[in-house]
Formats: sequence, structure tokens, C-alpha cells
Amino acid sequence: MERAENVAIVGVGLIGGSIGLALRACGASRRVVGVGRDAGRLDEARRLGAIDAASTSLADGVAGADVVVVCTPVSRIAADVRQAAAAAPAGALVTDAGSTKRGIVAAVEADDRARRAFVGAHPIAGSERRGAAYGRADLFEGRACVLTPTDQTPDDRLEHARDFWEGIGCRVTTMSPSAHDDALALTSHLPHAVAAALAATVPADRLPLAAGAYRDGTRVAGADPGLWAAILAANRGPLLEALAQLDRQLAALRAALEDGDEPWLRDWWAAARSRRRLYDGLEALDDAD
Amino acid sequence: MERAENVAIVGVGLIGGSIGLALRACGASRRVVGVGRDAGRLDEARRLGAIDAASTSLADGVAGADVVVVCTPVSRIAADVRQAAAAAPAGALVTDAGSTKRGIVAAVEADDRARRAFVGAHPIAGSERRGAAYGRADLFEGRACVLTPTDQTPDDRLEHARDFWEGIGCRVTTMSPSAHDDALALTSHLPHAVAAALAATVPADRLPLAAGAYRDGTRVAGADPGLWAAILAANRGPLLEALAQLDRQLAALRAALEDGDEPWLRDWWAAARSRRRLYDGLEALDDAD
Repeated sequence: MERAENVAIVGVGLIGGSIGLALRACGASRRVVGVGRDAGRLDEARRLGAIDAASTSLADGVAGADVVVVCTPVSRIAADVRQAAAAAPAGALVTDAGSTKRGIVAAVEADDRARRAFVGAHPIAGSERRGAAYGRADLFEGRACVLTPTDQTPDDRLEHARDFWEGIGCRVTTMSPSAHDDALALTSHLPHAVAAALAATVPADRLPLAAGAYRDGTRVAGADPGLWAAILAANRGPLLEALAQLDRQLAALRAALEDGDEPWLRDWWAAARSRRRLYDGLEALDDAD
Repeated sequence: MERAENVAIVGVGLIGGSIGLALRACGASRRVVGVGRDAGRLDEARRLGAIDAASTSLADGVAGADVVVVCTPVSRIAADVRQAAAAAPAGALVTDAGSTKRGIVAAVEADDRARRAFVGAHPIAGSERRGAAYGRADLFEGRACVLTPTDQTPDDRLEHARDFWEGIGCRVTTMSPSAHDDALALTSHLPHAVAAALAATVPADRLPLAAGAYRDGTRVAGADPGLWAAILAANRGPLLEALAQLDRQLAALRAALEDGDEPWLRDWWAAARSRRRLYDGLEALDDAD
């Protein structure tokens, strides 16, 4: 990011707090204002060094902002973006960090002023934990951030958004809101739903015999129920399609088990391992950057 | 373990190698002999300090053993146990480290001499990696080890097996071979199968947008296809039942998504999170031991 800017972060949890820490670590911002409903949590974010100043009024908090980043839960993002666009200076960029995009972008674009200020974004980084206390200045380092401009998005805002997210370490990529939601249904929402289903399936009295495969396979089931219910509901069409694809794998597995077809099981596992190794290769490339 | 014993480890991979490292670290054994088919891998295990001596002949390797631990793939364990029981001194304990127990115990007990020497065991520790090079002396520290004696198992052998596995750090528990296989279908084989199904579901071109939930949820899909095809096939009955229970969770999730029932999704996720937190609590207790 070339300019030293005033940034307002609406919603200073794990993601918002990490954005603040990253901005202050790289010196790219003149001033970071945190906006939230809970004064206690804002005080904590200030103590942690994630923000310089705080406001419980969205309108006041964004009044001097060059960039507003909305990091509230997906069910509140569109309304917060519209309010931020109305209160921020005319040239400001408004962007977000929501895990779904189609519904948010459509709701924002129904508003003239918001449409001209907004670039939808999803930095693909996070944790099952909540709160600025778990934030990290390097959370976005080398992580993908998807921008979802439409034919309504002004070019200068798109460039501004790209500079902003790259400035805190992201690898920026662009696609349509629908393409984003279809992809993330497979790469994030499905793995989250499977983790919760797996956690719910193993009875409590069996847990003393669970080991690494259960621990890792259910880790993200520790995430917040309200946040994730909203994400799954917001992206239910693509997620249902992703679940159908998983079900085809599980149905084939069941058939092979019923037949006792060990060669099929070996081939199936080998194909899954190859796919997984592609991911490991991508990760290794990132680490080498 | 009170006595300083001669131990033979048949199959010196990740598990066998870790047993050797643990035995030598705690000074509980007089001598550890590794038995395997590949002289190069046995040399490596000796270089790594996992074994004192090596043999490519099972009969020679177990000839002076007080304890024989069979750590070969599940499809070979019963035959290796029978061969070891035939060649080891009359008073020796033969135990194993197989991930399934019902079929192995039944095949071993069909043999008179093996039945009198054998105590089935499953130390619940491991990794998606293979080979003694990934072994660790503390792999079993605080981990559960299930012993599966039957009414055929001599009491002195059961006590010997308990001493042996506790000696390398395990928390020993006992249950029937069938109860073990039913429990592990849920706590280990199902999480492994789900990891492979998830890895196979996400298309290669989407992987750049995968993050932590995919990474952790598919980690164990990196395990060896031959080993895991054999485990899944050996425990197919209980695993099919576990898959049916998972399917009930996924069917309920699909119905809620189709209805857009966000409150149900929140309650479902909260229940899954509670279950997962029970596991975290058990882990914390282990760490505090």
C-alpha cells in the first residue's frame, strides 16, 4: 500500500483485529479506528495494539476514513456496508471480509452510494477462535484474498481494494460473487460442515479412544455456532451441491465396503492422497515465496 | 516395566520404530532386535537408534525374545504372530499393534501355541507418515493402548502385556476384540474415511482457495493407501454402521439447508461443538498427567 491512510475497521474480532495488527505492523496506515458495539472489547483491541482509537458509533468511526473494512458476521455485513458508505467521505473505499459474497454484494448494490464505494472481499484466513485476543499481524501473509467486483464496481475502487489487501500480505485474486460462493462451498463450507457432522457422530463415551484423525478432522467444529449457521444458510445452494458431491464419494465407499473390494479401496485412497498432495505442494510454494 | 527383557519388533516402521526408541529411551529392555524383510530399512532403524540388532529372518529374530511385538500391516499380523509364537521361547509374550482386532485375534486363536502366547493390542497413536525415520520415543506417552484378551488368554500373559505397554508410556485399557473394533470404527476409521472422501471431493483447480478447514480435515488422507485399504476392509461391518450414523447427521443437515432453518443449524453446530469440547477436555487432562 503506497498511501498512508486512515482506516476504519467495523467489527474488531479475530479477523478485524488481525487486520489492525497487520496495518500497524507494516506502517501502511496513518490511523486505525475500531468500530464495535461493545466498548469493553474495543478497549481490549486498543490494549492489544490492533487499533489506535475506538468508537461505538459506526457513523462517527468512519467519518474520516479513506478505507472502511467491514468484518462483522455475514448476516450484518450488507447493512453495515450501506451505513458505512453513507457516513464515510465520498472518495472512500468500503470493503468487507465476509465468507460468502453473492447475497452481500447483491444487497449492497441495491444501494446507489454503497455500490459506488464497495468492493466485496474474502481473505481466506481465520481460526476456530473468536476475538481480537487471537488476532495475529501475520494472519494474512501469503493467504488468498478473493475480490468479487461486478460490472457495477468502479475501476478505481477495485485498484484501491487490491492495494489494501495486498498491503497486509494477501495474494489477491478476482472472480464473480457466484464463482466465489461455488468455490468456497467446496474448499471451506463443506470441510466445516463435515467437521461438525463428524464431531456430532462420535459418541461422548468413545472419545477416550479418539486420536489424531478425530482431533484434526473436527477442529473447526469448535468455531462459533451463530457465525457458522449464518454462513451455511447464506450459501446453502452451493453447499447442498458440494454435499451431494461428497455423498457420491461416500456412497462409492459404502458399496466397496459391502463388496469387500480392497483393490478399489486402495485405488480410491491413492487418488484422495494425490489430491491432498497437490494441496501440500501449493502450501510449500506459498512458504517459499 | 520391571524386568530388563529381550524384545523383538517385527516390522520396524513408524510404530515399530517408535516402540524401539521408547524402549531404549526408558532403559527397560536389555536388547531390541528388529525383524523385517528389507535389510536397508533395518539398517536405517539401527542407525536411528530404534533397534540394537536386525534380522531378515523372523524365526532367528525372535529366538531369544521375552517379548515379540508384531507391527506389520493388519493383513499380515495374524500369520506373523503365529510364526513368532512357534519360534519364540515357550514363555514369551507375543503382542501386536494392529488397528483392528476381531479378525486378527480369531485367526491367532485358531493356533494352539499362538493362542497361549498372544495378547492383542492397539496403541492408539500414529501419523499419516511411514517409516522409522518418523518414529518418536514419546509417541505413546499418555496415549491409550487397548488390550483385547479373550477367555483363552492366559492371565500371566495379560499382566505381561500390561507391563510392557505401560512401560513405554501407554494408558492401558481392556475390552473385547469386537468392542474395540466397534469403538475404533467411530473414533479412527470413520475420521480416516471422511478425510479421504473430503480430499477426493474438492477439485484440484479449487485447491488454491482451500484453507485451514481443508488442510486439517484431509491430513490423514496422506496415509498409505495399502495400509488403510486393509484396515477399512478388515473392519467393514462396524465402519458401515459408523458411516450410516454419519449419514444421518448429513441428511439432517441437508434437510435444514433446504428449509433455510438457521436456528436448527445453530443448535446442531452448538451440539457438535460441545462434543468436540469434551474431547479437548480429555486431552487437557492427559497433558496435565
